[in-house]
Parts: sequence; C-alpha cells; structure tokens
Amino acid sequence: MNLQAQPGSSGAGQYRILREADLRDYLAELPAIVTQLGGAPADWSISEVGDGNLNLVFIVKGRSGGIAVKQALPYVRLVGESWPLPLSRAHYEHLALVHHARLAPKLVPAVLHHDAPLALTAMELLEPHIIMRKGLIGATRYPRFVEDISTFLAQTLFFSSDLALSAAEKKEGIAAFAGNHALCKITEDLIFTDPYRIAEQNRWTAPYLDATAAAFREDLDLHVAISRLKLKFMASPEALLHGDLHTGSIMVTETETKVIDPEFAFYGPMGFDIGAVIGNLLMAYLASAGHERTQGERASFEAWLLDTIEGVWTEFSRKFLALWRGEAKGDGYPVSLFAGEAGAARLEAERQAYMARLFQDTVGFAAAKTIRRILGLAHNIDFEWITDEKQRAIGEARSLKLARNLMLETPSYTTIGAVTYAARELRHWQPDFAR
Amino acid sequence: MNLQAQPGSSGAGQYRILREADLRDYLAELPAIVTQLGGAPADWSISEVGDGNLNLVFIVKGRSGGIAVKQALPYVRLVGESWPLPLSRAHYEHLALVHHARLAPKLVPAVLHHDAPLALTAMELLEPHIIMRKGLIGATRYPRFVEDISTFLAQTLFFSSDLALSAAEKKEGIAAFAGNHALCKITEDLIFTDPYRIAEQNRWTAPYLDATAAAFREDLDLHVAISRLKLKFMASPEALLHGDLHTGSIMVTETETKVIDPEFAFYGPMGFDIGAVIGNLLMAYLASAGHERTQGERASFEAWLLDTIEGVWTEFSRKFLALWRGEAKGDGYPVSLFAGEAGAARLEAERQAYMARLFQDTVGFAAAKTIRRILGLAHNIDFEWITDEKQRAIGEARSLKLARNLMLETPSYTTIGAVTYAARELRHWQPDFAR
Repeated sequence: MNLQAQPGSSGAGQYRILREADLRDYLAELPAIVTQLGGAPADWSISEVGDGNLNLVFIVKGRSGGIAVKQALPYVRLVGESWPLPLSRAHYEHLALVHHARLAPKLVPAVLHHDAPLALTAMELLEPHIIMRKGLIGATRYPRFVEDISTFLAQTLFFSSDLALSAAEKKEGIAAFAGNHALCKITEDLIFTDPYRIAEQNRWTAPYLDATAAAFREDLDLHVAISRLKLKFMASPEALLHGDLHTGSIMVTETETKVIDPEFAFYGPMGFDIGAVIGNLLMAYLASAGHERTQGERASFEAWLLDTIEGVWTEFSRKFLALWRGEAKGDGYPVSLFAGEAGAARLEAERQAYMARLFQDTVGFAAAKTIRRILGLAHNIDFEWITDEKQRAIGEARSLKLARNLMLETPSYTTIGAVTYAARELRHWQPDFAR
Repeated sequence: MNLQAQPGSSGAGQYRILREADLRDYLAELPAIVTQLGGAPADWSISEVGDGNLNLVFIVKGRSGGIAVKQALPYVRLVGESWPLPLSRAHYEHLALVHHARLAPKLVPAVLHHDAPLALTAMELLEPHIIMRKGLIGATRYPRFVEDISTFLAQTLFFSSDLALSAAEKKEGIAAFAGNHALCKITEDLIFTDPYRIAEQNRWTAPYLDATAAAFREDLDLHVAISRLKLKFMASPEALLHGDLHTGSIMVTETETKVIDPEFAFYGPMGFDIGAVIGNLLMAYLASAGHERTQGERASFEAWLLDTIEGVWTEFSRKFLALWRGEAKGDGYPVSLFAGEAGAARLEAERQAYMARLFQDTVGFAAAKTIRRILGLAHNIDFEWITDEKQRAIGEARSLKLARNLMLETPSYTTIGAVTYAARELRHWQPDFAR
C-alpha cells in the first residue's frame, strides 16, 4: 500500500509522526502561524485531542489566537499499525478543503498551512463549536443548520458537476481524486458490504438485535439493493463529494455551521453526501427517545429534527435548481438544445425529473448509512450513549426497520415528507423484544 | 490545447511529421521491424494511404512482410490546422491496443512498435482484410463476425468493469484515460449535441431531409433523450470503451475480424460500444436497398444482416454473463452477499436485470450513432455511395425514423428482436417526399 503523499503534492522534508514538542518547533518556523497564535512559542499550549478514528489532532493556543493541526497517521488510529492507510489522504483532504473554501467559504475552517510530506494541515480553530452529533444528543436546536448545510451541498455538488464544468475539467477533477481509493475502499467494505454478511468487525446491540442482524444477512432483496448502491458509489462520478458527511463531520454553534474532515473526498454520486446528512438526522430522531429523562420532554426537539430533515432536502433542491437555472456553464444539458419558451419549459421539467432521480439515490444512501451504523463496525454516539441497552436497541430496531423500508421501497418515497412520515410512524413502534 | 504526448509516455526524440523518406530511415533503425519486413530498406515500398479523418497511415512492404504505420497529426486531417487535436491520442490508442491485445489477442492487429514522442505506432499489416463497411456495401457476408465481435465486446468490457476489477484498479484505469478528453469532446459535440441544433458543420441530403432535420432540431423530447445519453456518456465510467466502434473501425475477411483505431478510448458506458456496432449494422440494413441493381437481389444479404444484429447482442450477452458467472473477481456485486442456492438464484436474476438495463443503453446509443451519421458532420459511405440522392434520402429517412423511435420509446424495446422487427417494418416504408 502506498504510504507516500501523491507525487503532485511536493515539498521538502520527510514524513515523521509529530509529538507535541516537535510540533512547537515546527510551527515556530511558520511566520503566518506565529502571527496567528501570538506570544512566544514556548508559551503556546499544545494538546492532542483527536477522538476520531484515523488521525492526530492538536489544539494549539497562543496569546492572541488558536489553531487546529491535523496530521494523518500511516495507519488507522482506532485499530493500529495492523491496518495501514495511505498518508496521501491528507493531500486529498487538503484539495477538498480548498474546493469547499472556494465554493462555501464561510462553511469550512480556513486552511492556514499545508505540508504534504508531513501529511499535515493547520486550520482555523473552531471555537466554541461542538460536534453536531453531541449537540443533537443534548437536544440542542441549530436554527442556521438547514440554511448552511443546504448551501454547502448545493454549492459544492453543483459546481463540481457536469452541469457547471466542461467534460474536460470534470475528467481532470476525477483523475485528481482517483488515487484516494483506499479511503473509498473503507466505505465500500464497511457501508456497502460487511453489514450484510458475517464479518469479524461487525457488532450490534446483542442479544436484542441478533435476530434482525441475522435477517439482514439473509435478506437477498436487501443484498441486491445494497449492491446496486455500491456499484453507483463506485462508478457514478457525478460530483466531488465530501464522502463522509455525517453529523460527526459537522461542527456547529447556534449561529454557525462548519463542515470538517473531507478526507474521504472523491467524485461519486451526489446522493451519497445528501443521504449521509439525512440518514444521520433520521438516526438522531429515532435515538432521541433513548435520551429522555421524562417521557415526551424532547417532543418539540424531535419535531424540529423532522422539520430540519425536510428542510435539508427542500432547501438543497431549491438552491441546486436555482444554480442550474442561472449558472449552467457545463457540458451537460446544453442550453442550445432548449431554446425559446417551449425549450425552457421542457428543460425545467427535465430538471425536476433529474431532482426526482437524485432524491431516489438520496433515500437509498440514507438507508445504507443507517444500517452500517447499527450492524457494522463504526457506531454512533446517538445510540452508544444510551446506556440502557434495551432502550438503545429499541431505537436501533426502529432505525433498521425504517432503513430497510427506504432501501427496498425506494420508488414509493417520492417526497421528503414521505420519509419523515415513515420515521414518525416508527417513533412509537415496539419491536418484538420490547413487547 | 496540449499537443504533447502525456508525461507517462516517455521516450527520446521530438515530434515531427514523417514523410515517406523519413519513415524509411526511421524504420531501418528498428531491428524487429527490419526483420519483419525483410530485404534492404531501400527496396521497401512505402505509401501513405490514410483515408480516415485524423491521421497519417503508411503501408510499408518489404521482401518478406508488411506493416502499417500510423502517425497522429497535431490537427484533424479532414479539416486542417485550424482544428488542432492533441497528439496524446496516440498514447491512449496504444494503451487501448495493449488492453485489447491482452483480452482479445486474435481480434486486434499486433503492435510491433510504439514511439510516444512521434505519436507513432507500427502494427501488423492486415491483408487481405477490408473495411467492413465497404464489404457490407458489396453485400458480402462475414460468417465469423458475430462470434468475433461478441467476444471482443464481452472480453474488453467485462474485464475492465467493476465486475472484474477492484475499485482501486478501476479508478487507476479511469485516471489513466482521463486525459483523452479532447477525443471525447468530439463525440460529445458531433454525436450528442450538433445534430439537434443549428451547427455550421451539419449536413444532410437536401432538400429531401430538410423537413426532418428541422423537426429533429425542434423535437424537445428528443433533446431530453439525447441529453440524458450525453450525461451518461460523460459520467458513467463502466468499462474501457473502444469509443468509436463503427463498421469503419473493423477490418474483415470471411474468416477473420480485426478491430482497429481505438484512439477514442476512455472509460464510459458499455452500451456506447455495443450500440455503435448495432447502430451501424442497422444503417447498413436500411442503406442496402439503395445499392440494389435489381429489386430484391440483396434480400438474403439483408436477412443475414438482421440475423447478425440479433446475434451481436445475443452472443455478447451470453458471453458477458458467462464471464460474470465464472470470473467475477471485482468489487461489484460481491459473491459473499449471494451465498447458497437461494443467493445464487437471486444474483442470477440480478444479472438478467443488469443486462436488461445495459440493453436499454445500447438501444439509445445505437439511435444516437445513427442520427449523427445522417444529420451531423461525419457521414457513412453506406449512404454516401448511393449516388441517386433521392434513393439515398429514402434510406436515410427510414434510418432516422427508426432511430427516433428507438430513442424516444427505448423502454418498449426490451429485446433485440423488437429492434430488428422495427427495422424490417421500415424497410419498405416510404417517406412523404418519395410518394
């Protein structure tokens, strides 16, 4: 496996894992960082806070400001050196951050410095932002979220698509990210394959979900559906995706939204990013009951969550369509074929049809993202933080039932309202083991 | 526009356009070529015979053998220096030839020498093969054709698809061909856009087809259909395509079939290659009446053509499915999700569904390939050699009527028999101008 950064991302120096003291010396040589932090390097506070699965993350604070420094490790941090992972992912993450910063500048952390050989990126410190998933567990509402995430999705997806780019520009983009296949492979295995077969790394809330997990491993209709989604994931480079856009990759305050960690970036199907957001919000909704201290205390928060889910699709769709109507400079759907009033009307109808197909993809991928979090390797704190295992399993069973339906009956979900309706119907459903 | 060969295709020397004398000196330095040709270089006969649109082609014959030498020009030969075209296409053509030679070794000319800086490839001389299109105009039957072309298609498409490759290998392949976008752009413009709008380069058999050409430029349903196909062409890298697989890219004898000229190669939708073969055979069928000296004299040849069209799909489909059943080492449709007898049966049903979708693509692309040859820039000698313009226009009008139907009513063509039936129905149809 290639542990080197890509040839394109040149720079002096060699890779080494930085300790806190090394980092201090390293940063002290960077004038822009020194200015940003303020004070003497010896006085900077440095702490390693990475709680993700893959990387080192340092928070560095000086007299006048702070930064976050992310360094990729040549293996999966969660597992150790036995699971190597290429450092080149830092290169792709940086490329994606630059793309996002150009298209949605207020919605991603500003990049202050990138060092390709060290697989290291220094960014604006996000304070007092918290990981959105934690905020949702605490029943906090984020009034800016729909507006911001729909802008992020519409801008980043539209402007990397065939609707905005020439075919040549698009192919260059695809080629630039093709080397990030090791990260794609994680998704291909952990989302699109393992939860549906016996795999050592799978886990679920036993014994309550044993029967459901076994049923998912036997359900051939589901296996066909997930295989079609996998093929779409692998071979539909519609746009540059974030690639891992769950609520743990979004940092929020009540007035700001920042999308972080695009190291899984590659050209794939747009519905994968949109479905990631919606699937994770659906899980937050069906996990919510498990966080109640008194029955019904989170009811209005839950209603807000459903409104938010509807808003994510509705606003994304509205903004994406507006961009298509106003900024379509790409080689797809050439405007010269839709001249005049009748042509404009026909193209508008086709735009609606395009969005309907994209919504179908979104529903399928939202379901896939849900199932992997309950039956696969990586779980969500939305559920994990429910300490009563039976209560946790009830929320998970509801989510699995919803996801299975979304995946098998995708064509019957033609609107986001149909999806939230189905979720609401399951909010009080009791699985057998709870009766 | 980049006129250089790709960085990867290294080699000493600089590009220069070779004249016959230069070529003699150049080849005399290549021991393998000297051996192949035999005799003294001064005695070799060299003639430039390129009748295609893009390149120089030399036939070189010595005492014991012959070779064909193809050199790319930095512009479109048909048009001249005003239409530049990157020399890198010779690099991609060579890559594709190597791919084809590995997977269908008897069905492509053997490559004897490649010089990247000169954009030059020396190949086995195909003798006494002729361009298949010419043979079909002469009502010659090719009993090996179905067997050979179906093998070529099944082997080259399957083994470059997600069914045979890991996602990482597939992405490497996509990236390796991403730079060939200038050739793709020709297809995007000339096949998927220009015939449906006013474009300077369009031509058709006037005045007979004036009304049809105008109707095609106004037909918004057709514009939606061609735009969907264009998007699929640009953003569905299912397999490594030949990219220009019409009957002018196939050389035949009654016992051999050789596929040549893959300079349009890129990762695209499989149906584009299959549709190219079928669309061009459908045109040969509907052009056939125009080559009659006495009515009905080509009837049995025409029946053979329809059988051949059916055989191309049927045999391709059979062979592709056999490869999928026996050689599926790729990341698509993981066999571990379809274990046991029930799993095997379900996967087989899904294979059939996959082929049904592929057939739909094939029908759509066959139609697109037909329309561009009658209303766009590049025409076929199948029609052009019909000197009576009205007779030519009758055949073209029948083809356009068929193609329009195939493109607009694609879902109703679920079998290749439905396609040949529709063609047969139109064989004696008279357009208004002929009545």
